[in-house]
Amino acid sequence: MSTTEAIPTTESSTTKPEFGVSGRKIVYDKDGKCRTCNTLLDFQFATAKKSVAPKVETKTIPEVKSSYAQDEPPDVTQLGRSSWTLLHSIAATYPETPSNKQQQDMKSFLNLFAGFYPCWFCAEDFQKYITKHEPKTQTQDDLGKWLCEAHNEVNRKINKPEFDCNLWKKRWKDGWDEE
Amino acid sequence: MSTTEAIPTTESSTTKPEFGVSGRKIVYDKDGKCRTCNTLLDFQFATAKKSVAPKVETKTIPEVKSSYAQDEPPDVTQLGRSSWTLLHSIAATYPETPSNKQQQDMKSFLNLFAGFYPCWFCAEDFQKYITKHEPKTQTQDDLGKWLCEAHNEVNRKINKPEFDCNLWKKRWKDGWDEE
Repeated sequence: MSTTEAIPTTESSTTKPEFGVSGRKIVYDKDGKCRTCNTLLDFQFATAKKSVAPKVETKTIPEVKSSYAQDEPPDVTQLGRSSWTLLHSIAATYPETPSNKQQQDMKSFLNLFAGFYPCWFCAEDFQKYITKHEPKTQTQDDLGKWLCEAHNEVNRKINKPEFDCNLWKKRWKDGWDEE
Repeated sequence: MSTTEAIPTTESSTTKPEFGVSGRKIVYDKDGKCRTCNTLLDFQFATAKKSVAPKVETKTIPEVKSSYAQDEPPDVTQLGRSSWTLLHSIAATYPETPSNKQQQDMKSFLNLFAGFYPCWFCAEDFQKYITKHEPKTQTQDDLGKWLCEAHNEVNRKINKPEFDCNLWKKRWKDGWDEE
């Protein structure tokens, strides 16, 4: 998604903005808002209680970083980063020659993960991907590469650079210093 | 684990240190090391190729932070933080009145998660916890509180402060500003 799109400002908090301060399209759900589908700033912008929605040029939305106990719920970016960290790490420690049960369990795990993923928009997207590209769970390397490709599909959609999947083990398993 | 414990220095890299520079006991696996079971510094300390292991007082272990494509695999702390972020967020968007299938799926998901968790030491611990305290999946609040208590059990073990589970929704679902 281009970050140079014009971001409309509104005069009233009853208007549901289409784009957020990040330039991304705001994702709503049936309850009217989706915290885990948007960046924090966009979520605050979309749900602003103020009568005049903040303009982009002035940072009127405070980012409160208080004590550990008052950390805010994660936004879509934090949730995505956390989830990919876990998934790729799971692949990195998956057996190199898994049993049939382990292969089946991994498919079940990925399907359940896709069903429970907290961002509904992202979850549906991942479910469609899995339907189209069945998870490869026969070996550790198959799984690692399949996950890397799934991740690259998301990267393309959100205009992030793709990762060279031949390097997945360096990034997620062995590090870059190993010879 | 106390952070004031003496940390032994060694003269040779062939010695497997018992404690790391963090003060935590180093966790090994059958291959001799476990990246995802230790903090990064401890892992580097335990697998140091140098002939003289670094002393605690001098920071001789470089922390290389290079480009995105050369980020290192996560250590136990990053993995833990990422995983709890995902799990608590999943609870926050779990249905308030789930169907029987959803309740069963959630139990399956948690069991599979515990089986595939990248840190073997942590995984076994979580599996024992689940065996002793069956996941409560009847409502969103049950699940959120069960997960919070599971997390507090880990916090106690690693000397971190416990979280007040009555506040779990503020932390993971609604934020702290909601009235």
